[in-house]
Amino acid sequence: MKALFAGSFDPFTIGHQSIVERGLKIFDKLIIAVGYNEHKPGEWTAGQREKAISALYQGDPRIDVATYTGLTVDFARHCGADVLLRGVRSMADFEYERNIADTNRAIAGMETVILIAKPEFSFVSSSIVRELMHNGHDVRKYIAGDFPLP
Amino acid sequence: MKALFAGSFDPFTIGHQSIVERGLKIFDKLIIAVGYNEHKPGEWTAGQREKAISALYQGDPRIDVATYTGLTVDFARHCGADVLLRGVRSMADFEYERNIADTNRAIAGMETVILIAKPEFSFVSSSIVRELMHNGHDVRKYIAGDFPLP
Amino acid sequence: MKALFAGSFDPFTIGHQSIVERGLKIFDKLIIAVGYNEHKPGEWTAGQREKAISALYQGDPRIDVATYTGLTVDFARHCGADVLLRGVRSMADFEYERNIADTNRAIAGMETVILIAKPEFSFVSSSIVRELMHNGHDVRKYIAGDFPLP
Amino acid sequence: MKALFAGSFDPFTIGHQSIVERGLKIFDKLIIAVGYNEHKPGEWTAGQREKAISALYQGDPRIDVATYTGLTVDFARHCGADVLLRGVRSMADFEYERNIADTNRAIAGMETVILIAKPEFSFVSSSIVRELMHNGHDVRKYIAGDFPLP
Amino acid sequence: MKALFAGSFDPFTIGHQSIVERGLKIFDKLIIAVGYNEHKPGEWTAGQREKAISALYQGDPRIDVATYTGLTVDFARHCGADVLLRGVRSMADFEYERNIADTNRAIAGMETVILIAKPEFSFVSSSIVRELMHNGHDVRKYIAGDFPLP
Amino acid sequence: MKALFAGSFDPFTIGHQSIVERGLKIFDKLIIAVGYNEHKPGEWTAGQREKAISALYQGDPRIDVATYTGLTVDFARHCGADVLLRGVRSMADFEYERNIADTNRAIAGMETVILIAKPEFSFVSSSIVRELMHNGHDVRKYIAGDFPLP
Repeated sequence: MKALFAGSFDPFTIGHQSIVERGLKIFDKLIIAVGYNEHKPGEWTAGQREKAISALYQGDPRIDVATYTGLTVDFARHCGADVLLRGVRSMADFEYERNIADTNRAIAGMETVILIAKPEFSFVSSSIVRELMHNGHDVRKYIAGDFPLP
Repeated sequence: MKALFAGSFDPFTIGHQSIVERGLKIFDKLIIAVGYNEHKPGEWTAGQREKAISALYQGDPRIDVATYTGLTVDFARHCGADVLLRGVRSMADFEYERNIADTNRAIAGMETVILIAKPEFSFVSSSIVRELMHNGHDVRKYIAGDFPLP
Repeated sequence: MKALFAGSFDPFTIGHQSIVERGLKIFDKLIIAVGYNEHKPGEWTAGQREKAISALYQGDPRIDVATYTGLTVDFARHCGADVLLRGVRSMADFEYERNIADTNRAIAGMETVILIAKPEFSFVSSSIVRELMHNGHDVRKYIAGDFPLP
Repeated sequence: MKALFAGSFDPFTIGHQSIVERGLKIFDKLIIAVGYNEHKPGEWTAGQREKAISALYQGDPRIDVATYTGLTVDFARHCGADVLLRGVRSMADFEYERNIADTNRAIAGMETVILIAKPEFSFVSSSIVRELMHNGHDVRKYIAGDFPLP
Repeated sequence: MKALFAGSFDPFTIGHQSIVERGLKIFDKLIIAVGYNEHKPGEWTAGQREKAISALYQGDPRIDVATYTGLTVDFARHCGADVLLRGVRSMADFEYERNIADTNRAIAGMETVILIAKPEFSFVSSSIVRELMHNGHDVRKYIAGDFPLP
Repeated sequence: MKALFAGSFDPFTIGHQSIVERGLKIFDKLIIAVGYNEHKPGEWTAGQREKAISALYQGDPRIDVATYTGLTVDFARHCGADVLLRGVRSMADFEYERNIADTNRAIAGMETVILIAKPEFSFVSSSIVRELMHNGHDVRKYIAGDFPLP
């Protein structure tokens, strides 16, 4: 089974890393797909994100890292992924993922597998990490991989 | 990958059946585990439930049906299951499953994989089916398998 | 339009009364249906509840009060009600009502109309009123109608 | 009873259409009110939306279609509507509608009637439809009425 | 400020202990109130629970341990507590506490202070601990204080 | 105990005022901290907000009013606050506050105390007040303090 784990990963957090580790116990192969939007540049470029995540899993033949734009489910089919893998931290996440999962099943017959985030990572999100960083806090412990920091 | 899908299945509904079908796209082998509690007899005996579900998947080598009592995660380890498979229909389900999943990870290192119920099955539960049946409604369309009906 | 507003009403609270008042702005006729369960006697008998609620709306030709046992939707059809009227106080209420409403639409084609409880009544429930009463508190201000109190 | 069903309807989906159909079983007259904001042009102009929805219900004397800007509750009073009709798909929707309904009751004494979206339409929203469309998917099956598509 | 922290504490968990520790940073004095119900004996007697918790905080002049039956808010007033202290682990907890807090403010003018459970304790509840114990698991690490174990 | 109650307070509502009043029953000293963002000017300037709130509590030695930019928890430490005080109106608020509270505990060891908004203020938010005002409604009854109105 090949699963696609997509996100903007701006940056890739220890919460994302935890989902990848847990996903590897379930799936043979994982594609980590870095989504970007030309009109909304992130804190790091898609290239920087891909490079940092690739370095993290270098040498692990079960993991591919790629960048994409557009609908996640279209990229998943393009890659030959069997399912989408998602981590859910909260009720709000759950409702959001439910809608996306129903949509992906309806338009592409693609299944979504949910892992519930470990409690200790439930507050760690890319947006909180960015906000801490912008306010001068050291965020190294929340980021997985060698993202260039100020 | 071998997953355990546990429940009281009193009765096994079309919602449960849908999770099994979707689970088979992800896992090589599925154990459907009928939980019972000696002190709370169900509407159907554990034996009746096991028989009806077994008949449903007869000839499918990917599926085993068993009965158990006690903690689900203990039975899962006893069976050599790699993960637990759960369907989630609602927020209340989600919070409940989150606590159980955290507990199972803490006490047994066992992972839980969540599938979100298809919207059209989100209201179908064993308890609603039993209540409809007790009030004289025909519930055949909500039950999967040949459960003896009044 | 004739709507059925069902509950155990054990007792009928100022929250229930508020839903009835608001329902009368929408529907021509309201049936207040007191549900009872032979095996679970309430704090007040179904007869006491019906009598107290009837007295409250005596002389109002738009309101009928009745008792019933069994499924609410079956009684609604028996009465010729067009829709079910429900008040929702919380998320937990909402999820519960959603499942019941989906079920009633599926088995009887019966529609459910939801009014959101006024904020000031959101904590008032029959069970909290009973618990306060059992502990010696004066609950007269939360009860609508002349329910016999200790 | 005259109800106002407001939204941006950008586009009008099969979910919206379902609420209108169900609303017609409850209310004598329905005003479908297309809200627009001069500073945020939608995917379709307010005029296009009004035209497409009007065509959909052409000949049905129970339905009026109109456009408006400003507060929905002010437009509802302007039209002589008795109540607001809203469809709720999720918990997040429910909390949002609760606040708006409380506000409208407080500032205008206007009541809100909630219908819970049918499960099969719970993931269909105008924003998901637009996103699918922008990514080249055929969204005709999710749109009600003859909205010009690319 | 004197706060009352009530519960059945059957048993007192590391989650309860965490709320007490955090409460001591806010309040001068804490009363840990062990609630019991004559008709529902717990796993441990109220006396055993009080003794185990008292031993835990022996020598700490800021903490009193007591047993009570009846409404928590009545006992709080009896003790001269200024506020109630509650830990909240989940949405379901939050809705429950909201109703109780609104009730206590309405009937007794008593304020409730909420601390959100630390994520790592969010799944630890007395009922899960009891269920694990009944199924032969070692629960010593989830229990605070010397509760007699099988 | 000194607590910091932060917000954009654009404007300060009767809901905020209610939290301050209730907070004063718990804490010796309250700092009301008006957060601003240079890049997102509010409806009122930070100076106007500070002035209006200060006038409201003039002569009360338990209350200080200040403005700040940046992370709330950093300002709290700068002021020597012991805890953060937050009001929660809804589930969505609760999930948001939980993440922020977990973050603040993790990065600064700062505790957060939650009060649940009184039901009658649960729909009152600064953003709803601004929207009503922009549409010509009189919002004086929802605002606490002498904010200049159109």
